[in-house]
Amino acid sequence: MSANLAFLGVPGGRWRLNTPSLLVDIDAFERNLAAMAAQARKSGLSLRPHAKAHKSSSIARRQIAAGAIGISCATLGEAEILGAAGIPGLLVTSPVVTPSMIARLVAMRADVMVVVEDAGNVDALAQACAAAGRRLPVLVEIDVGQNRTGVASALQAVSLARQVAASAQLEYRGIQAYWGHLQQVPEFTARRGVVRQQAEIVRSAIAALRDAGLPPVIVTGGGTGTALIDAELGVFTELQPGSYLFMDSSYRRGLLWPDGVAPFETSLFVRANVVSVNRAQHAVINAGLKSFATDSGLPLAVRGSPAGTTYRFMGDEHGALVYGAPTDARLAIGDGVECVVSHCDPTVNLYDFFHCVRGDQLVEIWRIDARGR
Amino acid sequence: MSANLAFLGVPGGRWRLNTPSLLVDIDAFERNLAAMAAQARKSGLSLRPHAKAHKSSSIARRQIAAGAIGISCATLGEAEILGAAGIPGLLVTSPVVTPSMIARLVAMRADVMVVVEDAGNVDALAQACAAAGRRLPVLVEIDVGQNRTGVASALQAVSLARQVAASAQLEYRGIQAYWGHLQQVPEFTARRGVVRQQAEIVRSAIAALRDAGLPPVIVTGGGTGTALIDAELGVFTELQPGSYLFMDSSYRRGLLWPDGVAPFETSLFVRANVVSVNRAQHAVINAGLKSFATDSGLPLAVRGSPAGTTYRFMGDEHGALVYGAPTDARLAIGDGVECVVSHCDPTVNLYDFFHCVRGDQLVEIWRIDARGR
Repeated sequence: MSANLAFLGVPGGRWRLNTPSLLVDIDAFERNLAAMAAQARKSGLSLRPHAKAHKSSSIARRQIAAGAIGISCATLGEAEILGAAGIPGLLVTSPVVTPSMIARLVAMRADVMVVVEDAGNVDALAQACAAAGRRLPVLVEIDVGQNRTGVASALQAVSLARQVAASAQLEYRGIQAYWGHLQQVPEFTARRGVVRQQAEIVRSAIAALRDAGLPPVIVTGGGTGTALIDAELGVFTELQPGSYLFMDSSYRRGLLWPDGVAPFETSLFVRANVVSVNRAQHAVINAGLKSFATDSGLPLAVRGSPAGTTYRFMGDEHGALVYGAPTDARLAIGDGVECVVSHCDPTVNLYDFFHCVRGDQLVEIWRIDARGR
Repeated sequence: MSANLAFLGVPGGRWRLNTPSLLVDIDAFERNLAAMAAQARKSGLSLRPHAKAHKSSSIARRQIAAGAIGISCATLGEAEILGAAGIPGLLVTSPVVTPSMIARLVAMRADVMVVVEDAGNVDALAQACAAAGRRLPVLVEIDVGQNRTGVASALQAVSLARQVAASAQLEYRGIQAYWGHLQQVPEFTARRGVVRQQAEIVRSAIAALRDAGLPPVIVTGGGTGTALIDAELGVFTELQPGSYLFMDSSYRRGLLWPDGVAPFETSLFVRANVVSVNRAQHAVINAGLKSFATDSGLPLAVRGSPAGTTYRFMGDEHGALVYGAPTDARLAIGDGVECVVSHCDPTVNLYDFFHCVRGDQLVEIWRIDARGR
């Protein structure tokens, strides 16, 4: 249970929260949720948004309510939690390969698909399904330049799709093509250029699969950085963005968007308190390496700290808010500050709860029930 | 409950674990536990080891059983969890300053002390104790060059100790002096040099407090990197190391030790599985930004991967094991690899369980019950 339950609905509760805490500006969040849903509708695409960003059945439920056909999961553990919560249309977007994890997958009593990219793995899945007496829908993953998972050619895609289609236990549904490496190409026109280039790989694979009598019913991929571009390619049937809900600083400030306007708002913040002001050059807050993911740069202190202040890590549990100039207003012990995070997915994975705020109130608490899974 | 419970005591269970999972080599862990306890005994110092490294009452209990007088906690949340588990001698090593967190501290039914470094905070603690009808033992924290928390001079230490001693609710017990910034000075002689220099600050503070009739009963500080040095200074009554249990690569490979021998062994590993081998230059494993802290460098793949292989992050849930040479042995899908982490504390904070292994068996599972607190 969140230590902040007592502040639910209490006037001024936001300013009294135990810290460090993860905040969601619920109005901005809901605008982001609606904006992506509208964008998908407008382009005639389905949405299967990615749970790796939020790891929460509370949010997955809201995405489904906003029209999503299902939820993408990066891990088996995410799919298990969302499946148990009754979320439909789950897709595990990474291969599930070990015997123990395949056993967990086929034991799931949920509407779940998985990607494959290896012939031995297809055999293993089919055998496990036979033993469990179930069928499993499957997508063939195609590598579109990320060099991570996926088959390397249209020829291999056809071969794997044939193998899947020939299995009594597996159900061939289509393909996945995810350009994770293109999501954060900074300039929009450059981003569009490389996405269009890589989309040729998907087109070739679709053509080859059609020629082989295996047209994909589902073509899934895309992300927050490329969604506007993905929608105009004419190759996808659905998109799987995740970060659009939160818009960390990498997505919102690190990227250039058409007409200079990011299509989504920052809704995720870490709230902390000043715990020491004994030094002239900075104040110390109670949020450090265990409160922020560190792979994509520093947090930005956006609320409660003087203009010009920058954040510096000071160990696992602390950070310094370094004053920009000696004339800056000074922070006092107990002052609250709120920071924009540089990478939402691994930051969310550090917390157990989203604290949803509207103005000065804490209006909802959502459990991050797939955290660590 | 750990998804790996079924593998407890099963021959070969280690190689079948669901991944990514956090492993503890229990024999190395127990040697580390005993070695630090012996070192403290030999130098006549008490141990109050730091829970920030393990966040687990199971491990705290073992540290107490090995002779520790209590456990240091970086956060109130850690102290609450360990207190509820019956761990004695808790010390919260960072100031607790907001009304809601002070209320939680004084509500604890546990043997707990806290550090102070601000006069207003001392007043706030005293008032909260008065309202709750309890007394609270307190240490004055002295900044020994880390510029994080602590008073800046012996004069201020005396002033604050007087204020504490004058309070009916607070009990003045001594001082804390922690040189976190010196723990990882690479060369041992250089490390000893700067520690001896900063120890003068502690000596001055102790002398000033004695002169003021406020001799500290407790002088606590020190860490894994400086413990050998801390023990010979003659200023501490107790040490609060944490990382010695696990010895991440920053401590074990990043530091030089006397006679070239690190006093503790690496006992902490992340186990992962190969999920894709479709590219010639690398294999892909299922452990990425959500499985390793990233602030102190890359993981090292030490078991299961060919010599010369290096790890590269490939997103939230994946990493590449990059082959050193085209002639290297190749990994296969499903192969298990085990990695040394670069920073144990924030890595442990990503997981819910320690999986303790001995040889090829999973022998115990310990909950990381203060994770995220």
